[in-house]
Amino acid sequence: MSDLPAAVEIREEGPREGFQIEPGPIPTRRKVELINALAATGLKQIQLCSFVSPKLVPGWADAEAVLAEVTPPQGVAFTALWFNAAGLNRALAFKDRLKLYGSISFAASEAFSRKNLNRDHAGQVEAMRALTRTHLDAGVPVTRISVQAAFGCNYSGDVAPALVVQAVADGLAIAAEHGATITEVTLADTMGWATPLRIERGVAAVRDRWPHLPLALHLHDTRGLGIANAMAGLRLGVARYDTTVGGLGGCPFAGQPGAPGNICTEELALLCTEMGIATGIDLDALIAAGHLAEDIVGHRLPSELLRSGPLDAFRKRAS
Amino acid sequence: MSDLPAAVEIREEGPREGFQIEPGPIPTRRKVELINALAATGLKQIQLCSFVSPKLVPGWADAEAVLAEVTPPQGVAFTALWFNAAGLNRALAFKDRLKLYGSISFAASEAFSRKNLNRDHAGQVEAMRALTRTHLDAGVPVTRISVQAAFGCNYSGDVAPALVVQAVADGLAIAAEHGATITEVTLADTMGWATPLRIERGVAAVRDRWPHLPLALHLHDTRGLGIANAMAGLRLGVARYDTTVGGLGGCPFAGQPGAPGNICTEELALLCTEMGIATGIDLDALIAAGHLAEDIVGHRLPSELLRSGPLDAFRKRAS
Repeated sequence: MSDLPAAVEIREEGPREGFQIEPGPIPTRRKVELINALAATGLKQIQLCSFVSPKLVPGWADAEAVLAEVTPPQGVAFTALWFNAAGLNRALAFKDRLKLYGSISFAASEAFSRKNLNRDHAGQVEAMRALTRTHLDAGVPVTRISVQAAFGCNYSGDVAPALVVQAVADGLAIAAEHGATITEVTLADTMGWATPLRIERGVAAVRDRWPHLPLALHLHDTRGLGIANAMAGLRLGVARYDTTVGGLGGCPFAGQPGAPGNICTEELALLCTEMGIATGIDLDALIAAGHLAEDIVGHRLPSELLRSGPLDAFRKRAS
Repeated sequence: MSDLPAAVEIREEGPREGFQIEPGPIPTRRKVELINALAATGLKQIQLCSFVSPKLVPGWADAEAVLAEVTPPQGVAFTALWFNAAGLNRALAFKDRLKLYGSISFAASEAFSRKNLNRDHAGQVEAMRALTRTHLDAGVPVTRISVQAAFGCNYSGDVAPALVVQAVADGLAIAAEHGATITEVTLADTMGWATPLRIERGVAAVRDRWPHLPLALHLHDTRGLGIANAMAGLRLGVARYDTTVGGLGGCPFAGQPGAPGNICTEELALLCTEMGIATGIDLDALIAAGHLAEDIVGHRLPSELLRSGPLDAFRKRAS
């Protein structure tokens, strides 16, 4: 177990993921309320919103209105998500309160790119070249490569680690062309195909080629294996995870209606805390934020820990 | 990963755990329906019911009526649970269709015994001596030692592995006194305190002392870490698990109302299958049984896999 990291960075994506998929409408002030609650838990990075078409994602039509109302506390970074120049331009209007960075995103499965983006791999390479140029021209660094469907795909089935390596190589080539410095590669289990063994093989394949490139995991709990996959990452020393409070969000992909989305922030925080891995998170405050999220969306979220509570309360009562 | 077992024995406890905790009443014929569905999935052992006081557990007042209607298919063992001579006598009436065996049960936390059984450790030793004698006198072998609260306790807090070793030693001493042969020790995470590291320490402590005693894990998903704990068991070569379909059941313990109970049979089966560990289970049939269980109890169960379905359907469509 000697490879467990001493500390992890858990990045909250609940507001962005959750409010984009809930049927809503959810009032702007309630989104602001959740963001402010999360910002007071010790989380160091929170992804607030998507700058995407309000026709496609009506839940984030009020992205600007939300951002106008929030200010990151000292030591907390607020981020946002976008996929094109129009989205970047909307984000740039809030550069005083958002940590802006660009990502180069590829799917390890070309079938996924075709279904999800209507682009083949060559088309995605071209699109990422153009988007990288757009970011750098706007003064926004491009620092992250994100690999979707890194452990399997609803459209192409199993994904070989070599395809993940190829996606990272393509991303690094684009970064090198444009003089961008990549500081993180995120492997995403977009459709819930990972197992602990697949995590091990995927991480090993990338590390064998680029031993010094920091890795992050974006894990979905589609089939209930998400926390076991996170544990596999921890055993390998992976120290960065994207999660959502309460398990906010869901799965928009084929054949899985109603399936859960990201792993729960508070369950990963509990797992780490109980194994001596520092998170910087106040678990009680985070669980309170999870209950607030349930109140805002008006239904129970997938998190089990929201039902049971953390262990320290029992320890205190026992002693 | 070389210690992963080649095959696992997944023992279904959904009917017993689920129907004892659901508010009900659930018609006898529907309990029979679920048992028959589970018996056709490839599961080799299914715990059907509890022989306990109908005043305390009204959900199993119809245990005899259910047993009268079911017959185990070839290769499938039906089991039941009881805690005293009265329960054993009720079970003996169905010895033609039940695999009968006795357990010696201790809690690793004396506080748990006091709260749950109103006995101190010495009292529990006496009770287990008497129950062992009763089983053997009735011709029922006593083969299992079960350690409750093996990884932590709501009433006493953290549980040192030495306390687990002590509980096993006490059980083995009783077995030796009476000439019973113990063939399994089950470590139960009764209140959801385990982490993968605690599983490793508890299993190691027992194995250090009794290297050849087969171990089983009975894991609860109280805080969402159940499947990661099962994975820790698999990594150690532990090959026997108690689970419930859909996550049927719940947690009756202090301070955790509404928390889930056992880990889901189908999620553990998926984890094993996707890692090449044989289970003998037809995952599609098991998931169908999970949906049937939801229909019978009239609400959604904790399982995520019931929402998303297994991977093979996607593989077939992709190829």
